[in-house]
Amino acid sequence: MIGYGFMGAAHSQGWRVAPRFFDLPAEPEMTLLVGRNAEAAKAAAEKFGWAETATDWRDAVARDDIDVIDIVTPGDSHVDIAIAALEAGKHVLCEKPLANTVEEARAMADAAEKAAAKGVYAMVGFTYRRVPAATFARDLVASGAIGEVRQVRANYLQDWLVDPQVPLAWRLQKHLAGSGALGDIGAHAIDLAQFITGQKLTSVSGMLETFVKQRPILAEVSGLSGTASDELGDVTVDDLALFTGRFDGGAVGSFEATRMSTGRKNAFRIEVSGSKGAISFDLESLNELGFYDATAPADRQGFTRILVTEPQHPYMEAWWPTGHMLGYEHGFSHQARDFVVSVVEGSQPTPSFADGLQVQQVLEAVEQSAESGSSWVATSGTD
Amino acid sequence: MIGYGFMGAAHSQGWRVAPRFFDLPAEPEMTLLVGRNAEAAKAAAEKFGWAETATDWRDAVARDDIDVIDIVTPGDSHVDIAIAALEAGKHVLCEKPLANTVEEARAMADAAEKAAAKGVYAMVGFTYRRVPAATFARDLVASGAIGEVRQVRANYLQDWLVDPQVPLAWRLQKHLAGSGALGDIGAHAIDLAQFITGQKLTSVSGMLETFVKQRPILAEVSGLSGTASDELGDVTVDDLALFTGRFDGGAVGSFEATRMSTGRKNAFRIEVSGSKGAISFDLESLNELGFYDATAPADRQGFTRILVTEPQHPYMEAWWPTGHMLGYEHGFSHQARDFVVSVVEGSQPTPSFADGLQVQQVLEAVEQSAESGSSWVATSGTD
Amino acid sequence: MIGYGFMGAAHSQGWRVAPRFFDLPAEPEMTLLVGRNAEAAKAAAEKFGWAETATDWRDAVARDDIDVIDIVTPGDSHVDIAIAALEAGKHVLCEKPLANTVEEARAMADAAEKAAAKGVYAMVGFTYRRVPAATFARDLVASGAIGEVRQVRANYLQDWLVDPQVPLAWRLQKHLAGSGALGDIGAHAIDLAQFITGQKLTSVSGMLETFVKQRPILAEVSGLSGTASDELGDVTVDDLALFTGRFDGGAVGSFEATRMSTGRKNAFRIEVSGSKGAISFDLESLNELGFYDATAPADRQGFTRILVTEPQHPYMEAWWPTGHMLGYEHGFSHQARDFVVSVVEGSQPTPSFADGLQVQQVLEAVEQSAESGSSWVATSGTD
Amino acid sequence: MIGYGFMGAAHSQGWRVAPRFFDLPAEPEMTLLVGRNAEAAKAAAEKFGWAETATDWRDAVARDDIDVIDIVTPGDSHVDIAIAALEAGKHVLCEKPLANTVEEARAMADAAEKAAAKGVYAMVGFTYRRVPAATFARDLVASGAIGEVRQVRANYLQDWLVDPQVPLAWRLQKHLAGSGALGDIGAHAIDLAQFITGQKLTSVSGMLETFVKQRPILAEVSGLSGTASDELGDVTVDDLALFTGRFDGGAVGSFEATRMSTGRKNAFRIEVSGSKGAISFDLESLNELGFYDATAPADRQGFTRILVTEPQHPYMEAWWPTGHMLGYEHGFSHQARDFVVSVVEGSQPTPSFADGLQVQQVLEAVEQSAESGSSWVATSGTD
Repeated sequence: MIGYGFMGAAHSQGWRVAPRFFDLPAEPEMTLLVGRNAEAAKAAAEKFGWAETATDWRDAVARDDIDVIDIVTPGDSHVDIAIAALEAGKHVLCEKPLANTVEEARAMADAAEKAAAKGVYAMVGFTYRRVPAATFARDLVASGAIGEVRQVRANYLQDWLVDPQVPLAWRLQKHLAGSGALGDIGAHAIDLAQFITGQKLTSVSGMLETFVKQRPILAEVSGLSGTASDELGDVTVDDLALFTGRFDGGAVGSFEATRMSTGRKNAFRIEVSGSKGAISFDLESLNELGFYDATAPADRQGFTRILVTEPQHPYMEAWWPTGHMLGYEHGFSHQARDFVVSVVEGSQPTPSFADGLQVQQVLEAVEQSAESGSSWVATSGTD
Repeated sequence: MIGYGFMGAAHSQGWRVAPRFFDLPAEPEMTLLVGRNAEAAKAAAEKFGWAETATDWRDAVARDDIDVIDIVTPGDSHVDIAIAALEAGKHVLCEKPLANTVEEARAMADAAEKAAAKGVYAMVGFTYRRVPAATFARDLVASGAIGEVRQVRANYLQDWLVDPQVPLAWRLQKHLAGSGALGDIGAHAIDLAQFITGQKLTSVSGMLETFVKQRPILAEVSGLSGTASDELGDVTVDDLALFTGRFDGGAVGSFEATRMSTGRKNAFRIEVSGSKGAISFDLESLNELGFYDATAPADRQGFTRILVTEPQHPYMEAWWPTGHMLGYEHGFSHQARDFVVSVVEGSQPTPSFADGLQVQQVLEAVEQSAESGSSWVATSGTD
Repeated sequence: MIGYGFMGAAHSQGWRVAPRFFDLPAEPEMTLLVGRNAEAAKAAAEKFGWAETATDWRDAVARDDIDVIDIVTPGDSHVDIAIAALEAGKHVLCEKPLANTVEEARAMADAAEKAAAKGVYAMVGFTYRRVPAATFARDLVASGAIGEVRQVRANYLQDWLVDPQVPLAWRLQKHLAGSGALGDIGAHAIDLAQFITGQKLTSVSGMLETFVKQRPILAEVSGLSGTASDELGDVTVDDLALFTGRFDGGAVGSFEATRMSTGRKNAFRIEVSGSKGAISFDLESLNELGFYDATAPADRQGFTRILVTEPQHPYMEAWWPTGHMLGYEHGFSHQARDFVVSVVEGSQPTPSFADGLQVQQVLEAVEQSAESGSSWVATSGTD
Repeated sequence: MIGYGFMGAAHSQGWRVAPRFFDLPAEPEMTLLVGRNAEAAKAAAEKFGWAETATDWRDAVARDDIDVIDIVTPGDSHVDIAIAALEAGKHVLCEKPLANTVEEARAMADAAEKAAAKGVYAMVGFTYRRVPAATFARDLVASGAIGEVRQVRANYLQDWLVDPQVPLAWRLQKHLAGSGALGDIGAHAIDLAQFITGQKLTSVSGMLETFVKQRPILAEVSGLSGTASDELGDVTVDDLALFTGRFDGGAVGSFEATRMSTGRKNAFRIEVSGSKGAISFDLESLNELGFYDATAPADRQGFTRILVTEPQHPYMEAWWPTGHMLGYEHGFSHQARDFVVSVVEGSQPTPSFADGLQVQQVLEAVEQSAESGSSWVATSGTD
């Protein structure tokens, strides 16, 4: 595993826990954690349960006893690590968004395609697909339960940037993070909307807004965080992204990604309606799915609050008895499970790097639209 | 109409509004309002829209141009007015609880039975039966949608007595009010539970509790209210009633009535579960009914939040388009409508005085159980 | 009252009920109902409780014993009636949207301004401002309870057009209705967002979509409805409007109006967040307001579900005890009350025709933006 | 660890995960899993991640390299194992309910008291105390945030026994399970109500009911489960327990435990109200706590939905960023953490065996009350 921030903890939990609940064709071994700061890496490895550490990701790529490289670093370093790993014959799991630019993402997707021809696979970590309620939403839509999909409403709302004293960390700097709320959480909204509907966005019209334009710069940087100084620096990414989009199957969607929605901590809400029904999901109630069946008797229609904890639901047979809740991190166990199964079976895990590239193209199209007065931009616009 | 408190306003609204939305076989005329205090009665009549006033209810009973007597006074006066009115050939609508004692209630029920033989009808005002979601709950249960009924959970929670400075008004004195939370709101819980399940309580085990044992007595009484003095007097009714009961159809229920449940303003919640499903209702969301269908596919089961605002739902065709909400007072329009229809058709309106007597018997059984250490008491125990 | 459709019933209920609960400086008399079809008008007058009927609105304008003209006809007739009434010295209450075009709305606003100079007043019926929870939301925001307003999310979702067999009634024809979801319910979203935030939209970027492009034409038209024929006609208005907007106080908003959101009956949801808090409202739970106070202790923050039924809340002292719910129609009583009070006091009621014109300008700007590839259009763009 | 059923999986996850998120003074080693069936135990050990297996719990007690015995067997075996382990100087964590009878529980509590004098500690696994929202509820009540506690409403509702074809497993047989819903989930309700209020139940009045009186007996028993036969056997435990209780601090509570509440999967709801506020918790929304502050301004009062995911909340600093949800199993990590910290520090972990005994006494008092017509029984009644 390259990197050891918040995502490092989550991925580690996934690798550790998956084989305890699922029957895997191979048992993951948590061999090596890589971090540039040797001491911090060592502390993280001990905490997260990795056997060894290194300070250069090339060491991991070079080792024969390592089969899988898990990339949880900031977006600007994904491209180099992933391509080197794939070329060295390592399977790769890479956190989202795939890269900071379409160009990088395309290079990665190309490398992944070549590797796949040799049985070496790459996957991008859009983990929310593997929240059982989200997977089940996809299943319902795919089964025709809501008919022809017409409308999508996807809002990913957080509020950790409301306070103007939150300092200017890497996620607020365009050259490191690529974009702000758009790439950080809007990418999830795009991926999940496409996953659930089975349709791809073909064009978008959007706007970006930065409400707090300057923030305290970090005095000392330690790893990825640090302490705030008195000096202010410019925020170069968006606090809010609003966009509308058209899908290739005829649906229309509205999207919002914000880190300034006071009171919403991690409210990723997605509603999809069709000619025969609708589904409704909120990550703040992640074990629930709302389902409306417009074919039911008129006096019994309504949104059904399905507790997605039955053995019949995706992934749930492995866990607890009905009604016992899963949490945020379980998606990472499901991701680890599916990745291991695909790789050992010799099949392409999803979402692929090509899927990650496509999301990156949508993100770029939103940025281009925002720069050109919200005019419509095709999601393959840079070709 | 005899009386003009809060219930007077609600009943007046029912008589006024019902003919504007429903097709009635006769149009109610709001002729005479009776109150002991002439000035207050006059003010109320003007406010509520009654043509004339009087200070003695006997005047109303004596008038030939009056066909219906509507009783909204405190419980201790129901018996005299209702019986005199019925004997004078007036149809009677009487607020709940029917009376303060089983004896009074029995006399009223007897009078009603005699009157009905002559085509003169009496009805008791358990209005919540006529909240469309509650009526629809009854319909669902009666249709077998939840199978054999097994469990009932009925809580009626208010909090207006939490403040110990609330003075010692008539509702807190046993000789005027009969009982406290038990008769005031517990009576609703009993009636609605029996109405929805179609089963009658046969025995109960209960307890009563008074948390605030003394309150400021009223210095000057003006009508039914007044101002608090410095002197304290004893509260002689319950703040809380808790009881369990067995129904004649095999169901078991738990009941709670309290005016001390901090934060619950008018939370009348009733849940009924059976061998094939369940329903869930909360008066704080009175346009909604929760329905669980245990015969649905296992992965799609859940409580469906039915907005009971479709034209297919009880009473709703008369009102607004789908999704437009009703309020508390609409139950009184429905009550007025059903009363007028029954009386003009010459059929017994429900709930009858016999139904009111039965609720009174349950209330008395709860009090007897509470006095005898929560031992079980049959609801017909006083016979 | 000119017109007698769904809005006629609602306005009638407002005029009838307001004086029974509020102390008004003058008592409304329901004198004359006007409808082109004499028989239908007569039936409506009887149902809604109006004394007389006429078939030409000019009769109403000409009568000396009429002080107020209430216009509840489709939008294309508003301009003529309202201007004639104002010029005749009648106070006017006109349903929203004010008109079908900015030109008409401007003429009406000009006439209203001239009339106001003579003490004759005009008001437009954006009734949802007078849902107590919405009024209270405005009060909270105005008091600074959520700090500087930054984001608005306003969705008005219905689903009565999902069924492709719903016929081509006047609301689906541009020359009669002006626009589709946009003007019908989007107008409410615009007005309420501006009302609550105290900010005006200055520019918008939007799109319109019609999912069901043809519908059965009406065989026989009777009043405003009729029966469907086998022949299909073109739907000339939008099923869905999506737009983003910038407010003059720096806030950014996203708006959605749709009559195709399966399962949402009348879900008018508005969320406003600011630097210190947020509010959240849903018309499907119209007695509730969500309020988030970001200045509370960190471990006690959360959205508070305020039951807006306390005597301290707007309009509520006139109604029932705490916890007793209001319904959809109560906004019309509040509107009647406020209109009568303003007019008798000789002050301008709000929202004025100038306010209605401004909403019309926003609607037009959205249409212009939609026609020009979602580019930004100033809301005063037609000047 | 002795046993390996559902609770075995949960405890294993707790031991495995706790040290990865919390800083523990000692690292748990998962040494030995004991199960009577050697093969099944071996499979479980592999699955749950234990190094070795044995078939006799005495082997575990005899080993010098084992410091802690974790008991997750059915209740009838707790007494022998726990006492032997404590006498052998092993710290003990024992699943709830502590035992099947008060006598057994008392022997265990006595043994624990003696062991504690030597620095050997015992704890009973009422894990729900360690759901952060429940712990925080306790903190709020202890801080006086709801004033003097008056009412408790605790319902633990499941529905897995609604189906009459569910076979007669050990949990439905009195000699193995002690009681039915009462001991299985009612024990949780008792413990959590006492934990949150800081008050102990002193007397109870209750009833038990068995709706499905016969079920298919198990043809072949394999471990704790098996396959159903055609023959029916008697269910000797309750499906439903309803009881009321008085607390030593003056509060009054109502309790319900049922495995027949159709549609409720694991709905453990507890509401506590006091003179200044109230709290509300539902295990089906385990990351949330409702809090009502009756000292807030009258127009801003309401239940606040606190997402208990802030670093200021109990246990939460160790986990994910704000708004990222925990699941059912996290309580077991918190339990493992607290147990390890207490034991290494040499202090008594809570809940102690004495606490477990007290819960057992309440359970027995409920059974005695149910047998004697719901008369009140003191919770120390067997002394």
